[in-house]
Amino acid sequence: MSYNTFGHLFRVTTWGESHGPALGATVDGCPPNVEITPEMIQHWMEARKPGQNKNTTQRREPDLVKIMSGVFEGKSTGTPIQLMIENTDQRSKDYGDIVEKFRPGHADYTYWTKYGIRDYRGGGRSSARETASRVAAGGVARAAINTLAQGVSIRGYMVQMGDKKIDRSRFDWDQIAQNDFWCPDAQMAAEWEDYLTWLRTKDHNSVGAVIEVVASGVPAGLGAPVYGKLDTDLAAAMMSINAVKGVEIGDGMAAAALTGRDNADEMSMGPNGLEFSSNHAGGILGGISTGQDLVVRFAVKPTSSILSTRQTITKAGEPAEIITKGRHDPCVGIRAVPVGEAMMACVVLDHMLMHRGQVGENQGSIG
Amino acid sequence: MSYNTFGHLFRVTTWGESHGPALGATVDGCPPNVEITPEMIQHWMEARKPGQNKNTTQRREPDLVKIMSGVFEGKSTGTPIQLMIENTDQRSKDYGDIVEKFRPGHADYTYWTKYGIRDYRGGGRSSARETASRVAAGGVARAAINTLAQGVSIRGYMVQMGDKKIDRSRFDWDQIAQNDFWCPDAQMAAEWEDYLTWLRTKDHNSVGAVIEVVASGVPAGLGAPVYGKLDTDLAAAMMSINAVKGVEIGDGMAAAALTGRDNADEMSMGPNGLEFSSNHAGGILGGISTGQDLVVRFAVKPTSSILSTRQTITKAGEPAEIITKGRHDPCVGIRAVPVGEAMMACVVLDHMLMHRGQVGENQGSIG
Amino acid sequence: MSYNTFGHLFRVTTWGESHGPALGATVDGCPPNVEITPEMIQHWMEARKPGQNKNTTQRREPDLVKIMSGVFEGKSTGTPIQLMIENTDQRSKDYGDIVEKFRPGHADYTYWTKYGIRDYRGGGRSSARETASRVAAGGVARAAINTLAQGVSIRGYMVQMGDKKIDRSRFDWDQIAQNDFWCPDAQMAAEWEDYLTWLRTKDHNSVGAVIEVVASGVPAGLGAPVYGKLDTDLAAAMMSINAVKGVEIGDGMAAAALTGRDNADEMSMGPNGLEFSSNHAGGILGGISTGQDLVVRFAVKPTSSILSTRQTITKAGEPAEIITKGRHDPCVGIRAVPVGEAMMACVVLDHMLMHRGQVGENQGSIG
Amino acid sequence: MSYNTFGHLFRVTTWGESHGPALGATVDGCPPNVEITPEMIQHWMEARKPGQNKNTTQRREPDLVKIMSGVFEGKSTGTPIQLMIENTDQRSKDYGDIVEKFRPGHADYTYWTKYGIRDYRGGGRSSARETASRVAAGGVARAAINTLAQGVSIRGYMVQMGDKKIDRSRFDWDQIAQNDFWCPDAQMAAEWEDYLTWLRTKDHNSVGAVIEVVASGVPAGLGAPVYGKLDTDLAAAMMSINAVKGVEIGDGMAAAALTGRDNADEMSMGPNGLEFSSNHAGGILGGISTGQDLVVRFAVKPTSSILSTRQTITKAGEPAEIITKGRHDPCVGIRAVPVGEAMMACVVLDHMLMHRGQVGENQGSIG
Repeated sequence: MSYNTFGHLFRVTTWGESHGPALGATVDGCPPNVEITPEMIQHWMEARKPGQNKNTTQRREPDLVKIMSGVFEGKSTGTPIQLMIENTDQRSKDYGDIVEKFRPGHADYTYWTKYGIRDYRGGGRSSARETASRVAAGGVARAAINTLAQGVSIRGYMVQMGDKKIDRSRFDWDQIAQNDFWCPDAQMAAEWEDYLTWLRTKDHNSVGAVIEVVASGVPAGLGAPVYGKLDTDLAAAMMSINAVKGVEIGDGMAAAALTGRDNADEMSMGPNGLEFSSNHAGGILGGISTGQDLVVRFAVKPTSSILSTRQTITKAGEPAEIITKGRHDPCVGIRAVPVGEAMMACVVLDHMLMHRGQVGENQGSIG
Repeated sequence: MSYNTFGHLFRVTTWGESHGPALGATVDGCPPNVEITPEMIQHWMEARKPGQNKNTTQRREPDLVKIMSGVFEGKSTGTPIQLMIENTDQRSKDYGDIVEKFRPGHADYTYWTKYGIRDYRGGGRSSARETASRVAAGGVARAAINTLAQGVSIRGYMVQMGDKKIDRSRFDWDQIAQNDFWCPDAQMAAEWEDYLTWLRTKDHNSVGAVIEVVASGVPAGLGAPVYGKLDTDLAAAMMSINAVKGVEIGDGMAAAALTGRDNADEMSMGPNGLEFSSNHAGGILGGISTGQDLVVRFAVKPTSSILSTRQTITKAGEPAEIITKGRHDPCVGIRAVPVGEAMMACVVLDHMLMHRGQVGENQGSIG
Repeated sequence: MSYNTFGHLFRVTTWGESHGPALGATVDGCPPNVEITPEMIQHWMEARKPGQNKNTTQRREPDLVKIMSGVFEGKSTGTPIQLMIENTDQRSKDYGDIVEKFRPGHADYTYWTKYGIRDYRGGGRSSARETASRVAAGGVARAAINTLAQGVSIRGYMVQMGDKKIDRSRFDWDQIAQNDFWCPDAQMAAEWEDYLTWLRTKDHNSVGAVIEVVASGVPAGLGAPVYGKLDTDLAAAMMSINAVKGVEIGDGMAAAALTGRDNADEMSMGPNGLEFSSNHAGGILGGISTGQDLVVRFAVKPTSSILSTRQTITKAGEPAEIITKGRHDPCVGIRAVPVGEAMMACVVLDHMLMHRGQVGENQGSIG
Repeated sequence: MSYNTFGHLFRVTTWGESHGPALGATVDGCPPNVEITPEMIQHWMEARKPGQNKNTTQRREPDLVKIMSGVFEGKSTGTPIQLMIENTDQRSKDYGDIVEKFRPGHADYTYWTKYGIRDYRGGGRSSARETASRVAAGGVARAAINTLAQGVSIRGYMVQMGDKKIDRSRFDWDQIAQNDFWCPDAQMAAEWEDYLTWLRTKDHNSVGAVIEVVASGVPAGLGAPVYGKLDTDLAAAMMSINAVKGVEIGDGMAAAALTGRDNADEMSMGPNGLEFSSNHAGGILGGISTGQDLVVRFAVKPTSSILSTRQTITKAGEPAEIITKGRHDPCVGIRAVPVGEAMMACVVLDHMLMHRGQVGENQGSIG
């Protein structure tokens, strides 16, 4: 990862600001002859699109992706794919207050200090709007993965909002698309709905969340130790998403509380080959995929732009109070779900290509 | 990060296996004229060195670092610094059993699957012994940081072993060097001592841990959004350490439970300039350092090599039981403390150089 | 350099095809607060623009550059600058013949073999039209260089067309802008004019050229041995330009014929400091700039698309004859002059940033 | 290429100075299960080894390569291969004069200016001794190439010393190993012998050379446009070799003098598939290999360390005369032959892996 590019062989460079004319992703290294249509990309954009319900920002963006290069007659040519998304619903006047004051907990202050200039409209480059580019790139990655391996699925969902966690015994994949929160637990989804409505309309506040992304069907052998480990790249990918403060693989932080005996994912031979008794490891050992589900979780902090008063200072160094108007997500974690999926897709594809490059096909076998 | 190299401008490539003749780090991009002596590097090696007390592996390695290049008359020349550590206390016969069987929760299986060959002696390249190279490189990074900024300190400590967490109200910096666990809470250190003794001698088990690393005095402005964020690189750096399963910045996973009002680190002007009311952000906003303490935590899973029986398979696909003899750390997290410090040092230096490269000095100021 | 990106800290990724909707450059790592206007970029685009006179392709493109991101209120923000150039004068029907036949000496065959798909219209990604993106990026680089150093000038010109070389005794900087060939020798410019007219209208042929690019005022100390040498990066930058087959620094290939005594650029102290008796080295010793003029030359082969018949094969493996219609440059070297300048600007800026990153300011001084 | 590392997937980082304890190469990304023995590496080292005859430096170095990691039971493991060469015949006292004076045409001045410190003994890091590491790495690359493709051969030879060029009509592959100059023209070899003896013993001078390296049997399809072109990387690789001032692919600079009709390598179908009527392109079109011989040439300037007096200055800025004693190559181009071969091998392997990573196998076919 370097400035605005991530990936080794499948390299994504995103560009653009919240209130500029457009933003996008320059996607390099996609294998040739992958079927890619605007509709395929758009499918994933719809999931992240703002303004779809009252629980997210009310900015209305169609988020239409234009494929500007790299695709010819519906297939990738192996050359850079430029994906562009025009901004259409900017309201820059909402941000007058932020020109001179810093939002606590926001990148306002650090961008100003470092660069001495920033596009303050909607956060400029630091806006979560940048993640639209990631989702578009993730659409390309998913298409390419499908040409390289059968049956890979990448699915994200929310497992916690504020201190309210889902009950895993009620986990239902089919529920995820049934509510505004990508929540696999219908009962908790209803609870979140009430909580967020109160938070948004009465408390003028925002709240954090935890997202989990699972990739199933990923072949064993992906990952390049020691510093190009699959989990290293996943951690970087997720931590690079706006507002993320923690990343976990498998049992994550809870692994600290386990003993070696409990943590061992025991191995045996089943009817379809190797089986594991559990997946504490989240599908990665020594930085290389085991063939089990890849399980990644990340915590998104609450939106710093809130309608409540906070103490801050101005650029002139004067004390000030700030209330942030504008159209902000009360729980930005919700829209981070498709972003996490996109980052997972990009990392998995990148490691498929890296693995094929160095090793070709897996060299070791069982039995 | 790519294969065995990390860093952008300060680039560290580590090499070597647990039971080969030597291992080391090729350190590229160090600024010139930094005073570097073997003693300075050795100082940090002593902290990680195995066999120092009964709570870590009994392998005895002097871990003497030889500076093979890049330093002339006691100063860095700006060319690659090769740091070599010879292995002296290998006992490869301990590993006969692992040639054919896979340790559950260990990289044995994934290395075999991917590469079809592995140096099984002591884990080969997947061994935590690789981290000795990181500590050596970290020694160079610390020396260089001191020439670029005044008063940066980087200190790590253990905050949790198994489910036993320190009591932050008893936090005492001076305690850290007083026990075998880098524990800032004397009372908890005593408790860990008893627990680990029992685990090691009676339960034949191992346990996980949580490490926290704090960098104080780091200037504001470091970090290169969007994919070269300071926290992105820290997450990658820590996740690349053996056995790490989770990484947190500031409040980390707990940030999910906060509201925007609580999470705001409010800003004011104090006698020495900008002050923050809190540090939920762990010193990083929008991927750029705020000038507050950088706070990173990571969870280390329990050692998978234990003296208890676990179910596994052989390379031939036959079911088997495995007990791992040899000399293993009952809590490998202990020795991860200096490793985490070293990774923090490398990342901070790298971003100092990156920042100077693109921006020179911070462009914005308050007041 | 990697796929479609070049540079270390100042990184340029180009995208787009000859006959797609647009092409452009994603420019990352530009220092903040550099004054950048569309007019500044456009100034350099005009030089490379096709269709300006009868000696270049008759395709008419305004080559208007749109700045899509990274510039706010006329200044760079330190975030990615997206430069987009819309294609307006495609005539894809001209290329019907190339769908099935390979032009000898062209990338047609290799792109087909590697990728199994290619945008045959106008050469697709392999078209020299890609170099428009480089010139746009070079405009940004020039603007940034001016903020970092005083008095750097980067100027290119043609020194050879076919076997007709300029007479260096007639070299006149002011002539360069006075003819269609960037020729510093007025007499030779007239000769080239006649020759090219004949070649184009009577001989239905094309011809090669040699371009020289000189950067004056570049500070000493730029370049990062051993594999990031300034000349290494310049060689790569120039060789990456379409149709380039050779690159020389200073005396270049002719250095082979010199003895050590002749080749020594002797040193002395003049009224303004260090002076050299000559510049065989082209301003680079050991990969690091000396402060003398940087002198780079490159040879451009003749355009492979010609109106004369050549023997070739079809995709089906059948023998065939080919004559390439369409609008092609009879001497593509002419329009390579501003491209060479742009690459020089990008490399010099990149090394300014790299140098500042690792070293800060030059550490050694004379006297 | 970045500082001391080159390559994309097959990455070589060299380290060490002329008069330090050792130098070497950290080779990362080698495919697993490649047979590698010290003898295989040593075979190539012998070719570059100094002191073998009176026409090269009289420094005697056995140049024994130790494999420190990454090879287990005679095969590569896919992890970093550390190759170390101990220096044994340093005579640092020879360099007393260079501490204070700069050799004209040498990196002395630029290293001092940039870094303010340098290991002046034997040129330190700027010494051609660094190229021993490249040859060792090239040995690994050759071994890996052999596992990926049948019948690839990489052979270099000298085609010019001073202004004396070989006669291509007398070209004889078998002659190359029969003289001290890797000269394929026996008559010219004799002439060079006389000339170099006179230059060395009477004229106290040195001379430049041109080397040509040919890779046969390289598959079509290698190379990653636009900035990872095969010729771009070859140009960078060769230009990074000490004292190289020019690089040519195929016809190189002479391509400028050709017309499009002459330059066309016409295509036809022969009994074994595609045939070309000529190879002006040097086996590369659009940055991608055609399957023909890869032909690269580079010019090496004369050694700047000569026994003749040259004017220079001291670090104090005083005028001075300099005569360089010590043991220097009168024509350093001779020993550059195996270095050029090694760089060719590294680049070809790297692109084999890159190609396999992105594309797998060639996607297009004829017929």
